[in-house]
Amino acid sequence: MKQFLSAADVEQAEVLLNLAREIKTDPRARRWIGRGKTLGLIFMNPSLRTRMSTQLAARNLGMEVIVLNVNEDGWKLEFEDGAVMNAGAAEHVREAAAVMGAYCDIIGLRAFAGLKDRSQDYAEQMLNAFRQYCGRPLISLESAVRHPLQSLADMLTIAEHAAVARPKVVMTWAPHPRALPQAVPNSFAEWARLFKHDLVITHPKGFELAPEFTEGARIEHNQDVALEGADFVYVKNWSSWSDYGAVGGGLDSWQVTADKLRNSNKAKVMHCLPVRRNVVIGDDVLDGPQSIVIEQAGNRVFAAQAVLQSILGEGR
Amino acid sequence: MKQFLSAADVEQAEVLLNLAREIKTDPRARRWIGRGKTLGLIFMNPSLRTRMSTQLAARNLGMEVIVLNVNEDGWKLEFEDGAVMNAGAAEHVREAAAVMGAYCDIIGLRAFAGLKDRSQDYAEQMLNAFRQYCGRPLISLESAVRHPLQSLADMLTIAEHAAVARPKVVMTWAPHPRALPQAVPNSFAEWARLFKHDLVITHPKGFELAPEFTEGARIEHNQDVALEGADFVYVKNWSSWSDYGAVGGGLDSWQVTADKLRNSNKAKVMHCLPVRRNVVIGDDVLDGPQSIVIEQAGNRVFAAQAVLQSILGEGR
Amino acid sequence: MKQFLSAADVEQAEVLLNLAREIKTDPRARRWIGRGKTLGLIFMNPSLRTRMSTQLAARNLGMEVIVLNVNEDGWKLEFEDGAVMNAGAAEHVREAAAVMGAYCDIIGLRAFAGLKDRSQDYAEQMLNAFRQYCGRPLISLESAVRHPLQSLADMLTIAEHAAVARPKVVMTWAPHPRALPQAVPNSFAEWARLFKHDLVITHPKGFELAPEFTEGARIEHNQDVALEGADFVYVKNWSSWSDYGAVGGGLDSWQVTADKLRNSNKAKVMHCLPVRRNVVIGDDVLDGPQSIVIEQAGNRVFAAQAVLQSILGEGR
Repeated sequence: MKQFLSAADVEQAEVLLNLAREIKTDPRARRWIGRGKTLGLIFMNPSLRTRMSTQLAARNLGMEVIVLNVNEDGWKLEFEDGAVMNAGAAEHVREAAAVMGAYCDIIGLRAFAGLKDRSQDYAEQMLNAFRQYCGRPLISLESAVRHPLQSLADMLTIAEHAAVARPKVVMTWAPHPRALPQAVPNSFAEWARLFKHDLVITHPKGFELAPEFTEGARIEHNQDVALEGADFVYVKNWSSWSDYGAVGGGLDSWQVTADKLRNSNKAKVMHCLPVRRNVVIGDDVLDGPQSIVIEQAGNRVFAAQAVLQSILGEGR
Repeated sequence: MKQFLSAADVEQAEVLLNLAREIKTDPRARRWIGRGKTLGLIFMNPSLRTRMSTQLAARNLGMEVIVLNVNEDGWKLEFEDGAVMNAGAAEHVREAAAVMGAYCDIIGLRAFAGLKDRSQDYAEQMLNAFRQYCGRPLISLESAVRHPLQSLADMLTIAEHAAVARPKVVMTWAPHPRALPQAVPNSFAEWARLFKHDLVITHPKGFELAPEFTEGARIEHNQDVALEGADFVYVKNWSSWSDYGAVGGGLDSWQVTADKLRNSNKAKVMHCLPVRRNVVIGDDVLDGPQSIVIEQAGNRVFAAQAVLQSILGEGR
Repeated sequence: MKQFLSAADVEQAEVLLNLAREIKTDPRARRWIGRGKTLGLIFMNPSLRTRMSTQLAARNLGMEVIVLNVNEDGWKLEFEDGAVMNAGAAEHVREAAAVMGAYCDIIGLRAFAGLKDRSQDYAEQMLNAFRQYCGRPLISLESAVRHPLQSLADMLTIAEHAAVARPKVVMTWAPHPRALPQAVPNSFAEWARLFKHDLVITHPKGFELAPEFTEGARIEHNQDVALEGADFVYVKNWSSWSDYGAVGGGLDSWQVTADKLRNSNKAKVMHCLPVRRNVVIGDDVLDGPQSIVIEQAGNRVFAAQAVLQSILGEGR
């Protein structure tokens, strides 16, 4: 694997998934293959699960890890070509990425959507600039548009719990007080297609995702209808893509509670976390037997490790 | 040892202390016993000595360490059961702790007192929530009410310097411009009782500690009388427990200077650091031969390591 | 080597440089010599390259690394002897440095100039206080007045690219919107003298460096004249030393562009980074074949490692 920015970078999806499953049985079985190599993790935005799970994955392979919290270090980057840098930014991404590449063997980058300018966000300016200038394999730790490490962990979690070859997977929008990016749902839809799941997406009108991501999925605006017979319910809020960044009001009824799941196939409930209890998902679901959110978070380690092993050339 | 939140978690006090002494003679003698295990350190509040000494202790045992600075990551936690999380907090401690437990084998948590609501502080809400939900052995890195890693280091320091079996240990209040928690003095009193020291506590009226901690100690409001014949003088400021969080004025004379120690038994002077010079303790003491504060800080490593070894099952 | 604060700490300059070159051929060849030792890195100011390269260097030698970001931890230090510490500072450098020394085998410190009080900056108060009280070999990670790890990397870079025994090295001032310290140019001049380069320094009038640093170098106020026949052009902004901390206006013509280099000896262009494009150096230079700034940044690892190896006693 040369980079890990989207599902398109995966050569053989089942092979990658099986690698993650194999790693989970003995995470430190190949703890020497990254020795002498360094993973640089650059966070333009906060991170808990991604930070911890990726560090653990790298250490399980014997890699060194260096973490850089960009905003905390007051290190502002310029992304425009030809800019006359006499204002806030002290460094251009051309040098920043190249220097990171000089120090590290693999680079991970987290760079969220700004949610103000859709074409700018969807152009993945930061991710592409780092990819272009770092000279090393780049791993997305969540970009403006995608969160592939999350999606691979999601696919692993589904594979572990699926009772049928092609489970019905329902991704449902849920309420949230703040504007959140579309990266997780975009990516989940992309990966569900890659793994040929029977994907239904349900959301209030006005919360359509970009068509390139939902191609092949069924869209159902009635949440109750969508959830009927679901094997997995993937709950997530996202802000509007059409009215870019807008948050809906009066949509509290979209919260996923135990009652909502009554006609599902005893659906397993997933969420990428953090989750706002009793806003996005009810306590009755999160504290009950159908929730697999903690296991799903735990799987982040094995997803990240499968990607690192594949990039190190020991994954296939 | 199953957890390390207070003196009550210690099964055999002398065995633990002897383990710390043994570790100090060769800190890396058992550098393999933590291999493949991860210690997660969560700091809700700043830390210098605890952060460094606990990391060093874990590395001396071969453990991986992941540090999470909660406030820097802008990660606000909800602690109330049943909360409708539509305000500031993005994650409930139930998920946060469980995810940490999914990633780490042992968890350390620092969570200071707020010093506004005594019953809330003394209920140890954060510590108890993490203990309940993380599913792993939990170590207090200083909670609202106790600082047991400090106290174990203090006991080690006293044991190394004591000329008699039951030294006279005087814990004296000292002035400070800001409101400080009672965690260190509470814990010191608790551990001095565990180790059967002859403990005298001296403080201005109004600065009584909670009775559950001072039980068995003598209270003496005249500092000069208290210090007579002391083998060890443990200096510390704390804010009022009865008038919760209050700071006294006009108490500068409580500063511990060389003159104050003239009738002590050439007392060794201790402080958990950081210490405000010439407010809490005078330069003449800190720069003189009676101060053992640096050695005391150094002992934090061996205390933390004894606790980690005990939890890893290699301590007894 | 007992410490690394300036060129004066180097016993044999060529031996140190050759060690760095040797390390570059196989950075992990002696990956055991730091095992069981800890390097403590204290940052009073932000750092990207120094932080990463020094960590990598230490890990290449098997050392543990503990990083402390002082300002983020809200940890203010007192430096005055005899201070009554009843204001902002919670800890005196005497204890802070001694405790760091109790935990670490080697200490690195970054402490920038304040650029307000020249005599205070040039007295190197923080660096000297840590040196005095930490009780361990101290490495400057850039102090108020010098940046010797940068300079050693610079000398390595020049040695790798020099076609003649004594290249013409021109250090030129360049514009910058903010007031920057003189540490990098001071140090570069000091090291160029140590390595007997033919050093020319060019800057607008009013930007003279302190005479103790420029002794032995030629000063030329006409940038074009200075750059004639240059083998290396070291570009750097600095604020005024005589009118301490002042930034010049109307000096945009000092920017180093491809046109400026036309009469040089196909000079290699260096900068310590971060660099403001099209203010300090033009895109046409940074994106062209004469720029060696990324390689120069990469050499920071080998410079730091040569210093660490020398201090560990395995460098000579």
